[in-house]
Amino acid sequence: MLKVGIIGAGRIGRVHSESISKYVKGAEIKAISDVKITEELTAWAKSMGIPEVYDDYKKILQDPEIDAVLVCSSTNTHAPISIEAAQAGKHVFCEKPVDADPAKIREVLSAVEKAGVKFQVGFNRRFDHNFKAIKDRVAAGDIGEPHVIRVTSRDPEAPPIEYVKVSGGMFFDMTIHDFDMIRYLSGSEVEEVFAVGTVLVNPEIGKAGDIDTAVITLKLKNGAIGVIDNSRKAAYGYDQRAEVFGSKGAIHITNDTGSTAVFSGENGVVAEKPKYFFLERYMQSFADEISCFVDSVVNDKPTLVNGNDGLQPVLIALAAKKSLEENRPVKLSEVA
Amino acid sequence: MLKVGIIGAGRIGRVHSESISKYVKGAEIKAISDVKITEELTAWAKSMGIPEVYDDYKKILQDPEIDAVLVCSSTNTHAPISIEAAQAGKHVFCEKPVDADPAKIREVLSAVEKAGVKFQVGFNRRFDHNFKAIKDRVAAGDIGEPHVIRVTSRDPEAPPIEYVKVSGGMFFDMTIHDFDMIRYLSGSEVEEVFAVGTVLVNPEIGKAGDIDTAVITLKLKNGAIGVIDNSRKAAYGYDQRAEVFGSKGAIHITNDTGSTAVFSGENGVVAEKPKYFFLERYMQSFADEISCFVDSVVNDKPTLVNGNDGLQPVLIALAAKKSLEENRPVKLSEVA
Amino acid sequence: MLKVGIIGAGRIGRVHSESISKYVKGAEIKAISDVKITEELTAWAKSMGIPEVYDDYKKILQDPEIDAVLVCSSTNTHAPISIEAAQAGKHVFCEKPVDADPAKIREVLSAVEKAGVKFQVGFNRRFDHNFKAIKDRVAAGDIGEPHVIRVTSRDPEAPPIEYVKVSGGMFFDMTIHDFDMIRYLSGSEVEEVFAVGTVLVNPEIGKAGDIDTAVITLKLKNGAIGVIDNSRKAAYGYDQRAEVFGSKGAIHITNDTGSTAVFSGENGVVAEKPKYFFLERYMQSFADEISCFVDSVVNDKPTLVNGNDGLQPVLIALAAKKSLEENRPVKLSEVA
Amino acid sequence: MLKVGIIGAGRIGRVHSESISKYVKGAEIKAISDVKITEELTAWAKSMGIPEVYDDYKKILQDPEIDAVLVCSSTNTHAPISIEAAQAGKHVFCEKPVDADPAKIREVLSAVEKAGVKFQVGFNRRFDHNFKAIKDRVAAGDIGEPHVIRVTSRDPEAPPIEYVKVSGGMFFDMTIHDFDMIRYLSGSEVEEVFAVGTVLVNPEIGKAGDIDTAVITLKLKNGAIGVIDNSRKAAYGYDQRAEVFGSKGAIHITNDTGSTAVFSGENGVVAEKPKYFFLERYMQSFADEISCFVDSVVNDKPTLVNGNDGLQPVLIALAAKKSLEENRPVKLSEVA
Repeated sequence: MLKVGIIGAGRIGRVHSESISKYVKGAEIKAISDVKITEELTAWAKSMGIPEVYDDYKKILQDPEIDAVLVCSSTNTHAPISIEAAQAGKHVFCEKPVDADPAKIREVLSAVEKAGVKFQVGFNRRFDHNFKAIKDRVAAGDIGEPHVIRVTSRDPEAPPIEYVKVSGGMFFDMTIHDFDMIRYLSGSEVEEVFAVGTVLVNPEIGKAGDIDTAVITLKLKNGAIGVIDNSRKAAYGYDQRAEVFGSKGAIHITNDTGSTAVFSGENGVVAEKPKYFFLERYMQSFADEISCFVDSVVNDKPTLVNGNDGLQPVLIALAAKKSLEENRPVKLSEVA
Repeated sequence: MLKVGIIGAGRIGRVHSESISKYVKGAEIKAISDVKITEELTAWAKSMGIPEVYDDYKKILQDPEIDAVLVCSSTNTHAPISIEAAQAGKHVFCEKPVDADPAKIREVLSAVEKAGVKFQVGFNRRFDHNFKAIKDRVAAGDIGEPHVIRVTSRDPEAPPIEYVKVSGGMFFDMTIHDFDMIRYLSGSEVEEVFAVGTVLVNPEIGKAGDIDTAVITLKLKNGAIGVIDNSRKAAYGYDQRAEVFGSKGAIHITNDTGSTAVFSGENGVVAEKPKYFFLERYMQSFADEISCFVDSVVNDKPTLVNGNDGLQPVLIALAAKKSLEENRPVKLSEVA
Repeated sequence: MLKVGIIGAGRIGRVHSESISKYVKGAEIKAISDVKITEELTAWAKSMGIPEVYDDYKKILQDPEIDAVLVCSSTNTHAPISIEAAQAGKHVFCEKPVDADPAKIREVLSAVEKAGVKFQVGFNRRFDHNFKAIKDRVAAGDIGEPHVIRVTSRDPEAPPIEYVKVSGGMFFDMTIHDFDMIRYLSGSEVEEVFAVGTVLVNPEIGKAGDIDTAVITLKLKNGAIGVIDNSRKAAYGYDQRAEVFGSKGAIHITNDTGSTAVFSGENGVVAEKPKYFFLERYMQSFADEISCFVDSVVNDKPTLVNGNDGLQPVLIALAAKKSLEENRPVKLSEVA
Repeated sequence: MLKVGIIGAGRIGRVHSESISKYVKGAEIKAISDVKITEELTAWAKSMGIPEVYDDYKKILQDPEIDAVLVCSSTNTHAPISIEAAQAGKHVFCEKPVDADPAKIREVLSAVEKAGVKFQVGFNRRFDHNFKAIKDRVAAGDIGEPHVIRVTSRDPEAPPIEYVKVSGGMFFDMTIHDFDMIRYLSGSEVEEVFAVGTVLVNPEIGKAGDIDTAVITLKLKNGAIGVIDNSRKAAYGYDQRAEVFGSKGAIHITNDTGSTAVFSGENGVVAEKPKYFFLERYMQSFADEISCFVDSVVNDKPTLVNGNDGLQPVLIALAAKKSLEENRPVKLSEVA
C-alpha cells in the first residue's frame, strides 16, 4: 500500500483525494497540506479518512512513511515544490502546467533525474476512455499514417474574469490539454504553430488581455497537420471531440452523455447534451492517471506522462502566443 | 419503349405517372383513364405529356399499342380489372391489396397464368433503399439464420374517419405492407398470427369498428418469430424501422431525414424528424418498382413481387383480424 | 454509518460487497456469511475490509450492530431467510426473484410488514442511468399517454446447460428483469400475457426443457401494449434497449459502449459493440440500488422497489410460461 | 418553357443535360455543342431528346429561340464564352471557376451587367439539402453570431496526375467549393488566409507541383474564423462535412449514405460509408441549381450565386496559394 501526500487542497487536490479514496487500489492518503487550514477542510479530510492535515507541505516531505506526493498547489509553486520533493526522495505527480517558463521546467526535470524518482504530469485526458480509444487504434496502425489531427475543445462557460487575469492566457490554461492531445494522438512532436485568436464570447476577456475563441494550426515533425479549435463557451455544454485522419481511414470520438436516451417529438429527435464539465466528463481519468502513477512507482515503470510531455505543450503554448501576437507562423525552436 | 396505360387517376395513379415521366427509362404513358374526367385532370395529363385521357379503362385495354397497364383504381375493382386486362393480353401491375378475398386473388392469378402475362403487386417498400439494404445483407447470410424480425410502422396522422370506415381495417390498409416486409426480410412464409390491438389515438376510430394501435406476433415457417408494432399517429412523423436479428448478428434500419443536420443547443442535440409521409419517404421506390416491372416485361423476367406475394399478406391480415376478434393465435390455414 | 451483513458470498454477494466498499457512502459491511468458507473467501473478505466471515447466516441475524442484510444466497433460500431476517428486526434487501411461488413471496411480504422493516428487491436496472432517463421523461409526461412499450434484451452468451436446468427457465431467470422494466417504464400493472418462444440458439437448451428465443406481448391495465424480445445469444454482445411510444412522442435508449470512438475505413463506419455483459453494463446500478436502500433505511423512506414489485414480475413470468405451454393469452389472475 | 443551350458536352455538360431532362420543370435543351462531335455524342444527345448537336458554340449563341446557355466548356474558355454569350443577349450559367484571373472575371461581370442578362456560377453545393439545412438555420439566427465555421472536404481518390498538372492546383480545383461554403455558411466575406499544405497521399502530386493535404484558416470580416481541412484521398469515400459554431449553439452536417442500415456483429456496429463521389452525392443539387437559375431567368429574380460569388472564392484561392508559397497569412487585398 503506497502512502501518498497531497500538497494543495483546492479543487484539483480534492478531486485527486476523492478518486484515490474511491477508485485507486494500492494507495492511501497519509496527509494533505494547504496554506490555509479551515474547519471545513479539516472536516472534509476526516470524511475522506485522511489522517493528517498540515498547513506546511514541508511536513509531508519530511514524513518518511510517505513515498509519493501530488503537487496540486498554485501553478507558480509547481516547479519549486516539485524540485524540493524530488530532493526529499519523493516520487512526484505534478499538476499541469509544470511552469510557464521552459527553463524552470528543465530545472525540475534535472532535479527529478538526479534524485531518481518518478515524475508524472497531470495530463489526465491521456487516460480518458475516448481519447485512449483513438490513440490505441492509431498506435495499432489502423488508420495508417496520420495526415490530419483535429481537436475540438470548447468549455461550457468562460471562467471568471478574475481567473482569466491570472490564468496565463487561454493557451496555457485551456489549450494546453489540446496541445498535449495533438502530440499524444499523432505520436509526433510539433515543429511550427500558427494561431488565430479573437474575442467573441465576452469583451471583458479581451480587456483582460486574453482571447476566448481560437483556431491553431500545427505542423508536426512527422509531416502531419494538427488543427485545434477552441471556445470558452459552448451553449450546449462541454465539447470534447477529436479525429485522426490517415492513409487508411479516420477515427473520431464524440461527446459522452449522461444517458443514451433519445426523445422523438414534434420538434425533432433530441439526444442529451454532453456531460457538463471536466469534473463530470473526466472524473474516471483522474482516478486512472493516479492508478497508473502508483503502478509506475510500485513496479518501477516509466510514467506514461513524463517530463518531456510536461515541457512540450508549454513550448507549443509559447509559440502559439507569439504567433498570435506577431500574426505569423512560429517555430518551436524560436521559443525553446 | 414500352407503352403503358394507367387505370385510375387518383393519388397513386398520379404518383406512378409522375415517377414514370421523370425516372423510368424505357417506358412511356400512352393513356390514363378515370371514372371521372375533370378539367383539372385533363390539364394535369397534358402537363405530364400523356396523349390520351379516357373515361373508360376498356379503351386502354383495347389499344393494341399499349403493352402493360397499371391498375390504380379503387380496391374493389383491382381483381376484375386485372382479370380483364390479363385476358386482353396486357401485362398487369396491380396496386395492393389485390383484394381482401383470397378466392378473388386466386382468380386473378389463374387468369394471369392462363394469359401468360406478367403480374406484379404494388408492394413498393421492397424497392426502398433501406429495406433493400437489410434484405440484401440477410439474403447474403451476413446475419446467419434469422431469429427475430421486427418491423415498426407508425403513420404521422390517422386517416380521416370516412376513410377508416371503408378501408377494410388497419391490418388491410396499413399493416399489409408490414406483413409483406416480414415475409420479404425473413424469406419465409408465416404460419400463425397473434394480434393485440386497441384504440389509443382516436376514439372515433374505435367507433368506426377499427383499431389504431397494434402489436402483432408472427410464427414463421422457418422457425423465426416476427413482431410488428403499429400506430396510426406518431407525433414525430412517419416512423419506418426494421431489424432482423440472427445467429451471426443483427441489421437494422432507421428513418430517412431531409438532411443530416444536427443542432446542438441549450435544450439538447437535435436531429431532424423523419421524412413526413409515404410520398416523401417512398417516392423513389415507386419509380423503382415500375422500372423493375418494365424490365420484367421487356426482358421476359419473373416479376419481383408476384401473385403469391399479393396473396400471402392478405391471408396474414385475415388471420390477424380473426386473432384480434377471438383473442387467440390463428393459423394461416384457418383463413386460406 | 449503517452496518450491513451480506448473506451469500457468490457472484452477486461479492458484486454488492465491492460496490458498497467503493461507492456507497453511509454504509459499511460488518459481516458476510456463506455456506462454504474457503481460504480464498477469507482472503477476499479481508481485502474488502469486511471484519467478520461466518459459515452461518444466523450469526449475522444475531448481531445487534447489524441493521440491514442483503440476501444474496441461492434463490430457494431467499424467502425463508428474508422472513427470518425480518423477524430478527433487520431491514432486508433481497435479490431477485424473491421466489418462484407467489404464495411464498406473500409470506415474505407479510413478515416484513409485521416486523415493520424495510424491504427492497434487487431489480437493479431501475437504477440504471439509461432506463432511469426513459422513466423520468415518461413520468414527467413528455411522451403523453404511453401506447407501446418495447424492451429488447439479449444476452451475449447462453448460460451453461447445467445452469439452464436449475434456473427455473428463461422467463424467471432473464426475462424477469424485462417484465419489471415494462411495469417500471409504463407505470402500469400487467393484465394479460402472450408468449411465443422457441429454441434457435442451442438445441441443448431445448433438451433441458427451456427456450432461448422469445417474443412476449403484454396487455397493460392502462390500455398500453408491452412487447419484449429476448435471445440468449447476440453475436455482438449484450443488447439492452427500450422504447416508450406515446401520444406526444417516443423515447428510446440504445446500448452503452466503452467509448464513443468511430472508425471510418474501407469496410464501413464502425462503432464499438455494446458493453459485454451485466457486470460491465450495470455495475453502477448495483451501487446505486444499495445507496438507495441505505437511504430508505436511514431516513425511513419507502424503498423504490417494494414487495409488490418483487411479486408482480413473478406472476407475469408464470403467466408467460403458461401461455407458452398452452399457446394462448393468459391473464395474471389465472396464476395469482 | 425556357429553351437552353449547353456549351460543352464533357462530364459536367452531360450531368446538367441529364438533370434538366429529368428534374427541371420549365426548361428544355434545344442544343448542345462540343468542339468534338463523335457518334457516341450524337447518339447520347438523341437519347436525351436534344434536337441539335453543334460543333461550334456560336450556333447556339445565334439561335434566337435559345434564351440561356450553360457554359460547361474547358475552364480557360469560361470567361470569353460567357462574355460572348452575354453580348448575344443570352442569360449565362457558368461553371466554376469562372477564371483563375480576377481581372478576367471582372470583365465577365462587366459584360453581364452591360447586357442586362442573368449570370449564375456553378457552386452547386449551395443547393445541397445538407448545406442548405445549415445555412437556413444559421441565417435564421438559431446559432446566434457565428464564431467558428469548419468545413471538412475529402475526396475518395486523387485525380489522375495528368489532370493535376492542368487543374490549376488543389485550391482552385477542389478547395474552391469549400471557400464558397465558408462565405455561404458564415454570410461574411474573407479578409485573410493562412494555408498549410503538404503531400501525403501521392508523391507524384508533389512532383507535379501541387499538394494533396491542407488545412486553411480564414479570418472573416464579421470576426468569425473559418477552417477547412482537405485531403485528396479518404479511404472511406467522399467526406463532406461542415459545422457552424456560434453564440447560441452549433449546427453540423454529416455524410449522406446509401441507406440507414447498420449491421451489428462480432466486429462492431457498422454503418455504411458515405456516398462515393460528387455525382452520387450532389446529383440533386445539380438539378436544383439549374431549376433556380431557370426561375431567376423566367421570373426576373437575382440569381442565388452571383458574379461576386464567382469572384471571391478565386481571390481566396489566390491568397491561399500565396500563403502556402510564402508561409505567412495573406490578405485578400494583396491578391485582388
